[in-house]
Amino acid sequence: MGMVGGGRGAFIGGVHRFAAALDQQIELVCGAFSSNAEKSRLSGEDFFLPADRVYGSYEEMIRTEKGLPEGKRMDFVSIVTPNHVHFGPAKMALENGFHVVCDKPLAFNVDEARQLVDLVERTGLTFALTHNYTGYPMVKQARDMIARGDFGKVRKIVVEYPQGWLSTKLEDTDSKQASWRVDPEKSGMGGAMGDIGTHAENLAEYVSGLHVTEVCAELTSFVEGRRLDDDANILLRFEEGAKGVLHCSQIAAGEENGLNIRVWGETGGIEWHQMEPNTLLVKTHGEPTKVFRTGVGSELTEAAQRATRIPAGHPEGYLEAFANIYRNFADTVRAGMAAREATAAERDFPTVRDGLRGMRFVEVVVENSRGDQKWSKV
Amino acid sequence: MGMVGGGRGAFIGGVHRFAAALDQQIELVCGAFSSNAEKSRLSGEDFFLPADRVYGSYEEMIRTEKGLPEGKRMDFVSIVTPNHVHFGPAKMALENGFHVVCDKPLAFNVDEARQLVDLVERTGLTFALTHNYTGYPMVKQARDMIARGDFGKVRKIVVEYPQGWLSTKLEDTDSKQASWRVDPEKSGMGGAMGDIGTHAENLAEYVSGLHVTEVCAELTSFVEGRRLDDDANILLRFEEGAKGVLHCSQIAAGEENGLNIRVWGETGGIEWHQMEPNTLLVKTHGEPTKVFRTGVGSELTEAAQRATRIPAGHPEGYLEAFANIYRNFADTVRAGMAAREATAAERDFPTVRDGLRGMRFVEVVVENSRGDQKWSKV
Amino acid sequence: MGMVGGGRGAFIGGVHRFAAALDQQIELVCGAFSSNAEKSRLSGEDFFLPADRVYGSYEEMIRTEKGLPEGKRMDFVSIVTPNHVHFGPAKMALENGFHVVCDKPLAFNVDEARQLVDLVERTGLTFALTHNYTGYPMVKQARDMIARGDFGKVRKIVVEYPQGWLSTKLEDTDSKQASWRVDPEKSGMGGAMGDIGTHAENLAEYVSGLHVTEVCAELTSFVEGRRLDDDANILLRFEEGAKGVLHCSQIAAGEENGLNIRVWGETGGIEWHQMEPNTLLVKTHGEPTKVFRTGVGSELTEAAQRATRIPAGHPEGYLEAFANIYRNFADTVRAGMAAREATAAERDFPTVRDGLRGMRFVEVVVENSRGDQKWSKV
Amino acid sequence: MGMVGGGRGAFIGGVHRFAAALDQQIELVCGAFSSNAEKSRLSGEDFFLPADRVYGSYEEMIRTEKGLPEGKRMDFVSIVTPNHVHFGPAKMALENGFHVVCDKPLAFNVDEARQLVDLVERTGLTFALTHNYTGYPMVKQARDMIARGDFGKVRKIVVEYPQGWLSTKLEDTDSKQASWRVDPEKSGMGGAMGDIGTHAENLAEYVSGLHVTEVCAELTSFVEGRRLDDDANILLRFEEGAKGVLHCSQIAAGEENGLNIRVWGETGGIEWHQMEPNTLLVKTHGEPTKVFRTGVGSELTEAAQRATRIPAGHPEGYLEAFANIYRNFADTVRAGMAAREATAAERDFPTVRDGLRGMRFVEVVVENSRGDQKWSKV
Repeated sequence: MGMVGGGRGAFIGGVHRFAAALDQQIELVCGAFSSNAEKSRLSGEDFFLPADRVYGSYEEMIRTEKGLPEGKRMDFVSIVTPNHVHFGPAKMALENGFHVVCDKPLAFNVDEARQLVDLVERTGLTFALTHNYTGYPMVKQARDMIARGDFGKVRKIVVEYPQGWLSTKLEDTDSKQASWRVDPEKSGMGGAMGDIGTHAENLAEYVSGLHVTEVCAELTSFVEGRRLDDDANILLRFEEGAKGVLHCSQIAAGEENGLNIRVWGETGGIEWHQMEPNTLLVKTHGEPTKVFRTGVGSELTEAAQRATRIPAGHPEGYLEAFANIYRNFADTVRAGMAAREATAAERDFPTVRDGLRGMRFVEVVVENSRGDQKWSKV
Repeated sequence: MGMVGGGRGAFIGGVHRFAAALDQQIELVCGAFSSNAEKSRLSGEDFFLPADRVYGSYEEMIRTEKGLPEGKRMDFVSIVTPNHVHFGPAKMALENGFHVVCDKPLAFNVDEARQLVDLVERTGLTFALTHNYTGYPMVKQARDMIARGDFGKVRKIVVEYPQGWLSTKLEDTDSKQASWRVDPEKSGMGGAMGDIGTHAENLAEYVSGLHVTEVCAELTSFVEGRRLDDDANILLRFEEGAKGVLHCSQIAAGEENGLNIRVWGETGGIEWHQMEPNTLLVKTHGEPTKVFRTGVGSELTEAAQRATRIPAGHPEGYLEAFANIYRNFADTVRAGMAAREATAAERDFPTVRDGLRGMRFVEVVVENSRGDQKWSKV
Repeated sequence: MGMVGGGRGAFIGGVHRFAAALDQQIELVCGAFSSNAEKSRLSGEDFFLPADRVYGSYEEMIRTEKGLPEGKRMDFVSIVTPNHVHFGPAKMALENGFHVVCDKPLAFNVDEARQLVDLVERTGLTFALTHNYTGYPMVKQARDMIARGDFGKVRKIVVEYPQGWLSTKLEDTDSKQASWRVDPEKSGMGGAMGDIGTHAENLAEYVSGLHVTEVCAELTSFVEGRRLDDDANILLRFEEGAKGVLHCSQIAAGEENGLNIRVWGETGGIEWHQMEPNTLLVKTHGEPTKVFRTGVGSELTEAAQRATRIPAGHPEGYLEAFANIYRNFADTVRAGMAAREATAAERDFPTVRDGLRGMRFVEVVVENSRGDQKWSKV
Repeated sequence: MGMVGGGRGAFIGGVHRFAAALDQQIELVCGAFSSNAEKSRLSGEDFFLPADRVYGSYEEMIRTEKGLPEGKRMDFVSIVTPNHVHFGPAKMALENGFHVVCDKPLAFNVDEARQLVDLVERTGLTFALTHNYTGYPMVKQARDMIARGDFGKVRKIVVEYPQGWLSTKLEDTDSKQASWRVDPEKSGMGGAMGDIGTHAENLAEYVSGLHVTEVCAELTSFVEGRRLDDDANILLRFEEGAKGVLHCSQIAAGEENGLNIRVWGETGGIEWHQMEPNTLLVKTHGEPTKVFRTGVGSELTEAAQRATRIPAGHPEGYLEAFANIYRNFADTVRAGMAAREATAAERDFPTVRDGLRGMRFVEVVVENSRGDQKWSKV
């Protein structure tokens, strides 16, 4: 693995490294950790990399690594930069034959996203987008139960993502995390929408198996002077007549990272909370709710079991779920190396197509929010 | 107290009687428990009433009781009939000098509601609408903390009311509860909206101290053949720039009576769930959440304390909260009898004006849902 | 109902009155609310009693009421005084033909308890002891599931009752509640043991259907100068080889009224918490836990349903559970009046025999705690 | 790191490897993964190890590695075998100058444990025992708050460890996990006591800062034919007059891995549950409970912060806590290599002395349980 971004002071870069390291199947072999060459070099030292594998730019990294003999060069690129620096390294990596793991959202805008979809489909390379919340075992369990019809037809989906960390004007402090996220030059059209709204949308589609078809949205920037939305309330229409609500916020003061989802079908439904990820509530009309737990019970689906590393009651968390994306991605890449087709279980990670859907979702929501039209098609 | 409706087989009539009896300050002295005189008579026997105080119609009850000497006749009328039979007895009671407790929603439509407001204001009689959820101590605590500015300006309000009991076409069975609620001739314009959506709206306004100014709604009837909405997703705009979401459902299969509310201000917020009513989560940006509990702590407001009957840790529930409406109503009536002004604490119960707001809310939501206009003013 | 004790400032007297009033089947007709005649009189006024039914002593009440014509005199006596004043009124009431409801623990010591058992058995009168926690629907559900063998043979029982209200030397303030409870002249041998330990023991036996056979105990008085135990840790042996732990405390600072019980059998078990009483966790080895809820599901037993007043999701609390004791007691008394045998469901309330077991339990625990013997037989 | 044990099919070996790998500071360089040389070899392949660093026995590993040049040979040994194979490799590693990480309990019996203590103290090498539950941030927070006197003097400690996985006679199946744990030849004197009781004891002492001084115990083997205890109920006395209860079980059917602890002092206390490890309830007498969360708030202690990898609301779990033991161990070893003294924060991991205390605890509990003496000194 070669990494783009994620040098000292970054948050998500470290997460990607933890996640890749956990299963001891992926090794960080090189990186361009910062657009500042010196900072990249220092970060490389932190990670015990030899000096000649630490690069001053992603262009240099991709070019140089391509020149290395097979077996020695990196197998894939992991892109963990702010949104506006996803497209460049992703495109170049793909064009030079490297598989890609890319942080979400896929790109800066829908146009870039479309180009990446084309490129992935043309090259046949493997591309994973780290909508990591789909990596949790209980999320997979929910998806599988809905897909196999345990609750009848899906009627209603409520997905929420309240955070409170941008309740104040954090971008005016030296918070690196905050500053680019609320800068339309770096983040794109969406503030909270791009950062966490896309996670919520992706989770809703993954779990329900239904695509959003129409939205009616209200975005707000509550913090004075903020340049992008920090709060969103959205009515959703899904395929097959399902209805829903998505709301997310970065000014929900006192909240941590409260992503959660509820889906109701004709005879029951599910409820899952990211902050207590090993629990899935399974509801049945007129009967006691069942508390599904990671690793417990004969009704666990194969995907839920595959995503679990340790016995029940030993909590697995965010990094493990993130690692599941990496593991499935790596298994798929390896399948390709071994010239066999990856199984459906191995290919169970978000793709460049999901990324395009997310970009399109943000775009439509932002436009709908600005206008008087009630419903906009995605 | 004289009761209209609430005979054998009714749900909410029994609740009103429990609630009125609990504090041993209100006595059921007469009733017209059913439009069927025989059924009314049998119900009266259940309640140990003398035969001559059990009436075959509310008209008869009000007329006869009015003729009784003061001190002997009922002091007020409690109306617990389906929505389309609120207006008649309420109007007649007020016109004959009786105070009124009326179940929600206030009336069958906005026009009736307006007439009742006028009548109450003209007669100066006391009128309580049993939006009973505002009777919980922790709801009052939340309201008081927000009102005194503990969280700064309110930014976002999410109020939910998922139920699952109408997931199937229950109205085709012999369920008395279901049949009138989904019948537009008895329930009015709103199905779930009138039955529980108004509770949610009332709770949001009570807790936040802000009125809803605009709505953007989607109502759905998921159960085939159902004549009124059984699900609603609504974007809200409140006074002073607050935004919100209200969603309620009677087809959320597997849910019981999940009314809950979250309010976020600039520095923190509150979260309350009706099914665990003695707990109020109080959130502060960047600090541990505090678990406020009925009866615990020096920070409890006077209203929260007044609404509590027994020491902390002895759970008080729905009937006690309901009884708080009755108690405050009775205290206010008694204050009038004693020719003194009721205190603000005594007058802390939903009024006919709240009822009108609720009726108007349902009307606007139903109309908005039918049309292409994004926002409708309430 | 005639009440002994429970005048102004009392806690449990009010609870008994709420509980008796709730179902509108029991009327408070007279009382000796205090050993202070003036205070009794004032309390009588609070309850709207005619002056001639408010007595200066329980002796006067029982004597006078007995002289009243049937139909006019009280049907039973409710005793809500401190422990050392249970025996006197209970004995006199029984000897004069009145049924009795008595607060727990049954008496001041085992000897008194034995006499009351004899008297009840000799007179054939109905005697209910308000171990009110057995009145909760979900407690009855647990008992029924265990009794019918849902979990195989019971192996382990853990019952806890942590409170924190006596963390400081409250008895040195003017707390009426605290002062008699820690006074061995009024409370008896046990402090926390008598006040809440007996509730825990009673609950464990009720739910499991097994009697405690041996105990090994350590009682402590943590607050300096306190005259009775304020904390207890006890190992239990039950019939049929089950083992257990009971711990209770009144110095568990920060706790409210945390009575809870877990029972494990060969294939699963139950968990119930008094502070969230409408939820019962039902566990099965290797399978998801089921969340039983008051009023939900086809698996609810008849006793659980009978103990429920309102639909699921409308929380019922402490007073409703307490009222279930009164309702069953009243139904049993009424059955007697109607010369029919009360059903098992009607007779489902704690009896004088349970009271004797509780007194004996306290005695053995206190003695074991003082000595070097590991196990003492109950 | 060189590993002893943990080949294919093992549970805890994998955990140690995940934990060591997570922070990318420790590399698995060699191993004797099984007493079966072929199995060891295959396991080595799984971990991408060169064939010449995969050994057929720990003796061979330690001998060979010692012969390698510094910088090339392993720095420490990680022992993840069943209890009866802890002493041999630990002793040999220490005698040959290697630091040691050892799974708990420390050894097969107290005598072995004492020898290891001596050896560690004589050699000055670093020895970590993986009582991993002390690695959680919120456990460290609890310890620090108690140590700095936030709750006054500690009065009561309740520590529980219910599991249900041995509810049936699993050792008669081919469960490798079960079979050695209930075999006194491999596990030692204690069954549940050695496996999880020591975790509970260690956690109680770590959090409270107090040592257990006396125990009164009842161990039981509920499953017929089981050779060691599968359930334990224990009364505890601690230093400074604190009292407590420890109960653990492997037959608590339906439980997963329910380690939890509550500590109450004079003015408040803490509650922590391993299965929801990022939450710490902090209680104060008469005030709302505060919900401390990993990563949230200005009151978090340095140790709690140091043990946290990612921002609040991104759940960290069992592996991360386990990794904290490894990270502190590695930091301490590195400090030694750099010839500086490790800081207190770096040395915050369980030691060989804690291991000896645990072994002694098991021994005394087992002996007490067999006899008639009430209290036994530890």
